[in-house]
Amino acid sequence: MASTPAYRIADLFAARAKNIAPPTYGTELTKIITVSFAYGLADPTLFPHDDLAAASAEVLTKEAPTALNYGPPAAQLYEQIILRLQAQGITADRDRILIGYGSGQILGLLPDVFVEPGDVVIVEGPTFLGVVTRFVSAGAKIITIPVDELGMDVDALEATLIDLQKQGIRPRFIYTIPTFHNPTGVTMPLSRRQKLVALAAEYGVLVVEDDAYSDLRFRGETVPTLASLDKAGWVLYVSTFSKIIVPGVRLGWACGAPPIIERLAMFKSEGPVGPFISHVIARYCAAGKLDAHIQKLVASYQHKCDVMLEAIAHEFPSDVIALRPDGGFFVWCKLPADISAKTLLNASGEHGVTFLPGTRCYTNGEGDDAIRLAFSYQPTEKIVEGIATLGAVLRQLRQ
Amino acid sequence: MASTPAYRIADLFAARAKNIAPPTYGTELTKIITVSFAYGLADPTLFPHDDLAAASAEVLTKEAPTALNYGPPAAQLYEQIILRLQAQGITADRDRILIGYGSGQILGLLPDVFVEPGDVVIVEGPTFLGVVTRFVSAGAKIITIPVDELGMDVDALEATLIDLQKQGIRPRFIYTIPTFHNPTGVTMPLSRRQKLVALAAEYGVLVVEDDAYSDLRFRGETVPTLASLDKAGWVLYVSTFSKIIVPGVRLGWACGAPPIIERLAMFKSEGPVGPFISHVIARYCAAGKLDAHIQKLVASYQHKCDVMLEAIAHEFPSDVIALRPDGGFFVWCKLPADISAKTLLNASGEHGVTFLPGTRCYTNGEGDDAIRLAFSYQPTEKIVEGIATLGAVLRQLRQ
Repeated sequence: MASTPAYRIADLFAARAKNIAPPTYGTELTKIITVSFAYGLADPTLFPHDDLAAASAEVLTKEAPTALNYGPPAAQLYEQIILRLQAQGITADRDRILIGYGSGQILGLLPDVFVEPGDVVIVEGPTFLGVVTRFVSAGAKIITIPVDELGMDVDALEATLIDLQKQGIRPRFIYTIPTFHNPTGVTMPLSRRQKLVALAAEYGVLVVEDDAYSDLRFRGETVPTLASLDKAGWVLYVSTFSKIIVPGVRLGWACGAPPIIERLAMFKSEGPVGPFISHVIARYCAAGKLDAHIQKLVASYQHKCDVMLEAIAHEFPSDVIALRPDGGFFVWCKLPADISAKTLLNASGEHGVTFLPGTRCYTNGEGDDAIRLAFSYQPTEKIVEGIATLGAVLRQLRQ
Repeated sequence: MASTPAYRIADLFAARAKNIAPPTYGTELTKIITVSFAYGLADPTLFPHDDLAAASAEVLTKEAPTALNYGPPAAQLYEQIILRLQAQGITADRDRILIGYGSGQILGLLPDVFVEPGDVVIVEGPTFLGVVTRFVSAGAKIITIPVDELGMDVDALEATLIDLQKQGIRPRFIYTIPTFHNPTGVTMPLSRRQKLVALAAEYGVLVVEDDAYSDLRFRGETVPTLASLDKAGWVLYVSTFSKIIVPGVRLGWACGAPPIIERLAMFKSEGPVGPFISHVIARYCAAGKLDAHIQKLVASYQHKCDVMLEAIAHEFPSDVIALRPDGGFFVWCKLPADISAKTLLNASGEHGVTFLPGTRCYTNGEGDDAIRLAFSYQPTEKIVEGIATLGAVLRQLRQ
């Protein structure tokens, strides 16, 4: 027998796995510092733990044989999701719905279905990189359309689509967060939504509508979802229980054309979501307390948002422009030209205060002129304390 | 504006998504007929629903803020898994462990880390296709090593490795179920295990040890896991709570070299498993009742297995050879030359009895000479009824 060559496990890795990219979610959450405005975490003091305990106990008493074995998600969860979709003006049946481990899982499956290396994907700038990095990893060529105070600039989108068409390029999809946008908090008005949906049909491009926050509206009028305006099947709607019940159960859903749903399910390689958790959330929803719970969340998040905006008005230099959201989790602040978001983060981090620098909301290096502040997680006194610290650091940077 | 071309969503699909392959797990479970021996379903009458209810209630009372928010799996679950690994002779720390939505999810991630189209993957024949089809989909070239009554034929494996080395081919990994093999129920003895681990190191090939069933031993002596024999880091060990607690929570784990664990985590794109369910199972395990529960399962599955073997001895033609397992969920029957498994399935299906034909345990079309009968799910009276029906159909086919 020949002497054993010095084999290494690393030589077995596929090219795509040679280099390590850290997982997108969760790993950094263990090091929350004094006041973190960095993550879109739900407020744990608002979790409906008693009602979830009641739902869990009922499932384990009445539905254990089904809920604890292998099998599909609870039929009742599909029914509850269909009701939520109807409330958004979207007609659906089970064939149009995929339930996943959070909307993030479903959005992360999009490249499997739609992207070959070099294919064009259109995103907003700024956007939610937690999802967009998945498109980048899959080899998508990212084109960024600017977001202003009315959401994605659909005229710029149209110009891009025309330009791409001239080049013979058909983008795979447009990823948008039209309501309480992450990170800017802005909401796209009806006129832009109508144009966006019309452009999708005209150019044959899928629109992926990420709608994690729209139930958390605390002022202003409801605007129809893109999916409710879409008559031609070019919108894939994605939402989640993470913001309105709890994130820790990991349940989100997509609604769209059956050929898309079938293919997303095909690449969800571990099979359907766990029966147990699907039964628990279905029972919680069916108990009829969710609407009241959402109203409670809305009141709390509105208060936190207002506390943050008021603190910003008092503590930040007047040339920092804070956008006032009508809902969601985030306040976006545009910094004056002499302040860098990264520099601010380094300085405030030394005082125990963090946030998301705008650079982490773009794939193209932009964003050092803005920051995202999440008001969702911190108690109000911490919001006041953290904004005061940030204000002091901003003034120091100018000295 | 030019008239709109007739765009179709289907034109947006990546090549890998053009054709539909049904998801591997779960979808067929909704059409269970009179007596199904087809699936490795746990017995729902044995689910510890009261203890799970107690664990859920405690989590929701004491750990709701952590268990219901975003975040990593419960630290206590890692501790419990480390204890279970120690019981298998495997030393581990958290860096060597990935927790996934069932062992199926982790096994399904292997191609992302290891397989580029055309790479060689070695599997057993017969094997668990639920996982192996994922390797096929990723473009792996599958080489099948036969399984006899002592598990994988490691001499045949060695000959294959020598042959591949001559061709300059290094296989990516060897997928094996050495204990209570799925589908045959056989267990590989120590001598073959030692040779398999030595071959892995000698040829620089990863061994993926799928160990879903080893806690469910109802006779014979424990045999060391491959991972416990491996001193050089060439074994990735994979196991699950599905068979010893409940499948419906979807929790499994892998233990292996940190560079592999990091990469599997990287491709687990939805992030860590849900905190809630990880806290519930950790509390259930920590309450100290799991060992007693496993003893109860073992007694029940032993009884069911014996009932099935006895019924087979009475009802099947004497030239059907049933292998007698020492644990697990399955009895494997070799059919006489004049009986086709597919023909038998068609005939027995008309009488409401199903099983897994051997053809669904090979990627290469073999297996029409054998069937897998799962004794785990059906109550004993149904086992007797189903085997009697199968025996009658077998005799009819010979008339």
